[in-house]
Amino acid sequence: MAENKIPVGILGATGSVGQKFIALLTDHPWFEITEVAASERSAGKKYKDAVNWILSTPLPDKIANMVVKNCKPDLNCKIAFSGLDSGIAGEVETEFANAGYYVVSNSKNHRMDNNVPLLVPEINAEHLDIIKTQPYKGCIVTNPNCSTIGMVLALKPLADAFGLEAVNVVTLQALSGAGYPGVSSLDIIDNVVPFISGEEGKMESEPLKILGKFDGKEIKYTEVKISAQCNRVAAVDGHLECVQVKLKKKTTIAEIKKVWNEFAGEPQKLNLPLAPEKTLYYFEEDKYPQPRIHRNIDKGMAVAIGRLREDPLFDFKFVVLSHNTVRGAAGGAILCAELLKAKEYIK
Amino acid sequence: MAENKIPVGILGATGSVGQKFIALLTDHPWFEITEVAASERSAGKKYKDAVNWILSTPLPDKIANMVVKNCKPDLNCKIAFSGLDSGIAGEVETEFANAGYYVVSNSKNHRMDNNVPLLVPEINAEHLDIIKTQPYKGCIVTNPNCSTIGMVLALKPLADAFGLEAVNVVTLQALSGAGYPGVSSLDIIDNVVPFISGEEGKMESEPLKILGKFDGKEIKYTEVKISAQCNRVAAVDGHLECVQVKLKKKTTIAEIKKVWNEFAGEPQKLNLPLAPEKTLYYFEEDKYPQPRIHRNIDKGMAVAIGRLREDPLFDFKFVVLSHNTVRGAAGGAILCAELLKAKEYIK
Amino acid sequence: MAENKIPVGILGATGSVGQKFIALLTDHPWFEITEVAASERSAGKKYKDAVNWILSTPLPDKIANMVVKNCKPDLNCKIAFSGLDSGIAGEVETEFANAGYYVVSNSKNHRMDNNVPLLVPEINAEHLDIIKTQPYKGCIVTNPNCSTIGMVLALKPLADAFGLEAVNVVTLQALSGAGYPGVSSLDIIDNVVPFISGEEGKMESEPLKILGKFDGKEIKYTEVKISAQCNRVAAVDGHLECVQVKLKKKTTIAEIKKVWNEFAGEPQKLNLPLAPEKTLYYFEEDKYPQPRIHRNIDKGMAVAIGRLREDPLFDFKFVVLSHNTVRGAAGGAILCAELLKAKEYIK
Amino acid sequence: MAENKIPVGILGATGSVGQKFIALLTDHPWFEITEVAASERSAGKKYKDAVNWILSTPLPDKIANMVVKNCKPDLNCKIAFSGLDSGIAGEVETEFANAGYYVVSNSKNHRMDNNVPLLVPEINAEHLDIIKTQPYKGCIVTNPNCSTIGMVLALKPLADAFGLEAVNVVTLQALSGAGYPGVSSLDIIDNVVPFISGEEGKMESEPLKILGKFDGKEIKYTEVKISAQCNRVAAVDGHLECVQVKLKKKTTIAEIKKVWNEFAGEPQKLNLPLAPEKTLYYFEEDKYPQPRIHRNIDKGMAVAIGRLREDPLFDFKFVVLSHNTVRGAAGGAILCAELLKAKEYIK
Repeated sequence: MAENKIPVGILGATGSVGQKFIALLTDHPWFEITEVAASERSAGKKYKDAVNWILSTPLPDKIANMVVKNCKPDLNCKIAFSGLDSGIAGEVETEFANAGYYVVSNSKNHRMDNNVPLLVPEINAEHLDIIKTQPYKGCIVTNPNCSTIGMVLALKPLADAFGLEAVNVVTLQALSGAGYPGVSSLDIIDNVVPFISGEEGKMESEPLKILGKFDGKEIKYTEVKISAQCNRVAAVDGHLECVQVKLKKKTTIAEIKKVWNEFAGEPQKLNLPLAPEKTLYYFEEDKYPQPRIHRNIDKGMAVAIGRLREDPLFDFKFVVLSHNTVRGAAGGAILCAELLKAKEYIK
Repeated sequence: MAENKIPVGILGATGSVGQKFIALLTDHPWFEITEVAASERSAGKKYKDAVNWILSTPLPDKIANMVVKNCKPDLNCKIAFSGLDSGIAGEVETEFANAGYYVVSNSKNHRMDNNVPLLVPEINAEHLDIIKTQPYKGCIVTNPNCSTIGMVLALKPLADAFGLEAVNVVTLQALSGAGYPGVSSLDIIDNVVPFISGEEGKMESEPLKILGKFDGKEIKYTEVKISAQCNRVAAVDGHLECVQVKLKKKTTIAEIKKVWNEFAGEPQKLNLPLAPEKTLYYFEEDKYPQPRIHRNIDKGMAVAIGRLREDPLFDFKFVVLSHNTVRGAAGGAILCAELLKAKEYIK
Repeated sequence: MAENKIPVGILGATGSVGQKFIALLTDHPWFEITEVAASERSAGKKYKDAVNWILSTPLPDKIANMVVKNCKPDLNCKIAFSGLDSGIAGEVETEFANAGYYVVSNSKNHRMDNNVPLLVPEINAEHLDIIKTQPYKGCIVTNPNCSTIGMVLALKPLADAFGLEAVNVVTLQALSGAGYPGVSSLDIIDNVVPFISGEEGKMESEPLKILGKFDGKEIKYTEVKISAQCNRVAAVDGHLECVQVKLKKKTTIAEIKKVWNEFAGEPQKLNLPLAPEKTLYYFEEDKYPQPRIHRNIDKGMAVAIGRLREDPLFDFKFVVLSHNTVRGAAGGAILCAELLKAKEYIK
Repeated sequence: MAENKIPVGILGATGSVGQKFIALLTDHPWFEITEVAASERSAGKKYKDAVNWILSTPLPDKIANMVVKNCKPDLNCKIAFSGLDSGIAGEVETEFANAGYYVVSNSKNHRMDNNVPLLVPEINAEHLDIIKTQPYKGCIVTNPNCSTIGMVLALKPLADAFGLEAVNVVTLQALSGAGYPGVSSLDIIDNVVPFISGEEGKMESEPLKILGKFDGKEIKYTEVKISAQCNRVAAVDGHLECVQVKLKKKTTIAEIKKVWNEFAGEPQKLNLPLAPEKTLYYFEEDKYPQPRIHRNIDKGMAVAIGRLREDPLFDFKFVVLSHNTVRGAAGGAILCAELLKAKEYIK
């Protein structure tokens, strides 16, 4: 193993999020994949024989020949990235944290736990400190839902500068958000599905924690009313969201563009490896942002915004786009782990 | 020509709306197509040689061999259905009305004229009387924008029973709404376009007129605040809309379903040929309505509704679906003409 | 039950072929669905609670409330239409035939049995007589694979008029051919899959039997060399096939179009309810046939052909299109049952 | 301008191929874009104002602010890459060659000229010498049609090792091959179009020249019978082709894989900047290659092959995939220019 790199394991390595973890961690300057773990059915096989690789970048040779392990806390690694199915993630992640692993999870199970940070490094890096209150020998850090992340990143500078009173959002979400095989082609070709199980609740609750304040003891949720409606559309990657906001202070379109443009957080200050140079990109063209064109900007870690205009019912409306499996899942989780390391939480 | 049938002409007969007029008027019990008219470029040709027929039902033989005429008011018909491009529709329709034709138009040009009804027969049949104030020898009747119709049909029973205060809508609109060739495949495969030129303005203004009161002299617009955001998605037909409403009176989900279920208007009372048996169909399944599954219910003339639930910001939210080229264009216009005839406006 | 109608049951009624059987048999003049049967998991439930209805026509009320039975030969019906999964179809169908049912199957299991007709009523109606050699109290009749049917219908008049020496075919097959959920959307949006398990073998072998001669005792396979390559594309319904043929006699494009145009068989002579008026439709436009435009011609029971031209390697090449779940599955099987009845095999 | 870089201009710079030239030439080690030229309508504008940028990689800032020139031979560059429409490419390219420019064209006009190489650098680098017989002060070099390139690259090692007797190909071609706006979304969602104007002729004729021998005076066409059938499918990029070959010598699957695997040409020997490390990649998985997964392998410059098997009518059949706008258009043309430079044809 490369000197000085931190050994990391992937839990749920054969799933769609697991695969994205592998793709994004290949050639990572700080982390090196030393373990891939998955269900009993895959354990013992070579990774290439256990996985149905669905990404358009090739499966790295080194990983291809690794033997898949069980998701038991006897892996040779420090950080455990979890892309586990929510049916088992809760328990397995707790076991790993108890055993001393730094668990960085994309699963929903621990997100709303009192002592677990729901981390978006540009927004609430200071929430990380709550892991000191965790009972685990290691720790658990979570990443929000893929449809929450793009929206909260666009909202954070507004919340700071003008105060948020209400948020309305309607999503047009990509297929990869449902995993593999996920959505049947017969359900989505020439069609839209106006329902994603559990998604609206996550979008209405997670931002309250993410935008909340950590007072050294607990995270005080922010008070904003949020209404979400979630739709599945025939795009492969990239969640597009129509957002409306009511603000506490009066402001202008120019000022909003300014705070978006100037927005940066710890990942940029610390120059984290996977941090986008700029987190928010505003596009002036009426027809932008679009999933196929903008989902990959700045390594897929930035958020594209467009169509900011005044709204007859709220104050402003605009469109947000972010890559749901990069910024919204594996990439976002890796950025959390980079923050853990840069802030010296990892020993 | 079949005895007693009213001769009708199609203006813009080679365009996508014109084609749908032809398909829907074939075998119509009251109307018979006697003229097809289009631009100079097509005039003089056989229809089948002038048209790029894009519908999945075959071009009727009788129409195929008709000679395309110019859009001049010397056509052998009483009613002129207009699917003209808005670049020329305004002037041409005025010429036809002046010359004594009953113009029923799907184009936007005259929709907001003071003396022109913006007609949805289930909603505002009484507005038709305003054509008596028109200066024309004939008259002009218009059909709303394709994205407006589904929404206002769902809103009308709520307005009547509970009063409407505010409406928020985000659309996921089908490709056929942009005509042919319309949206490039490169813009929509694996993509969404969060912008449709002029569409949001129409959705925010047209309902105020449609839901307004005609006092015998003029149409008094209703006062409702509406905000619309319009997106294009990769569905062929069927506009899906996420709607939120704030109502004047308190009500319940059960009461709303009841008023939707009982909703009927003049088309149903008069048993108009193209009237749906029922205008509004509510689906209890979370995943419904969907464009591919529900756009054709009741001949494509009904509206499918689903997912009614309480809303944290407004009072209620729900999903509406209607066929944009049938109910939302040619079919809607034909229903207007049927009302004209049933109400004996046509001599 | 309607007087004189033959009671029929659907085996595998909740699957995608089963659903299509139900849709096509509703209001059938000769048959009436009296039983729906499926796996243990569904048995005992109301059909509407057991099925995930995926068709765009509504589930008929009468069927919705039927109780699903087990696939045991104690059903109250004469004909058993089978849309069973091939994992169990072989055995279950044999049981039903033994018990006296007329089994008409869309499954592959018995297709190549010596004493089972592989029936395409326009082509080999006389093969039906082989059921007299079956050891069953009832009988088994099979329908070819969905990709075979369109091709053999186009080939039959060529075989009769000019003799077939070799056939080359490359398919572009629709998603519904894989059942539901079938193909993952992530595998087909912005993509093509150049492989369909088992499909090429069926296309290379089934035509030899279908086009064979029944000498009163056995079916003598025809001798034609066939090569097939099968691809899955992002169309919902309608298999498109690029076919090349080498013929025994020299002929011309005009003669080929003539034999196609004149082609008719027993279903047309007997005026069977689901028979297309014309089985083969030739389109002169270069860009035709296309799945979305032509799959439904003549109730989805006809085959669309186009682009006939001379070929530098074979004699001729052309494009064939047929509806894979109507003509190529449930509709084709119903036509077989209609032939059974019209020919008085059913007592 | 960077020292030692060769100044290049893009003719037809605002079109879809022009855009791809720009994307691929940004940061090129040998070439630097100094001019962008297009039609009268665009000339005089800033490139960013003249172009409807459709690529998913951002428009480079440096190019965005260049002023678009007319396509007149007074451009400040040595090489002129042409992505011109065939309506004008022939004449304009001749003018540029006459004026001393090294024209490398992706347009069809000069491809079959006697003294113009139809260049695929791995295959027929020696054809380049024919430019010495051209009457121009500069020269014209052409790139084959996008659907030809993938196929001939797969055929070349077979032709060399075993001799080619006949080739049969059926294509499933991507949308970007038709340019922008190109194929209407209404023609391709839930559909296939079995016709691409002019394409089959190119695939049947171009390989004969490409695989031909240059004897120092002229290119002797190879003699192979080719039959092509071309279809458009709903994939954005990546042409997939089902190929069958009859060979002069008997061989085996293993031997064919070996010659593919060992295949390399001048671009690899000369280590040209845009050359793929390996030109042909064979995939053992039945379901591969697929457009979305394999079109970008080795910078989009390699060809993916799969499903090699024996064929009942020919000797072997297999599937080929290549990126139609990279290897099949702009990338292929740049590789030709790199060869021109490496072989010191450019002074």
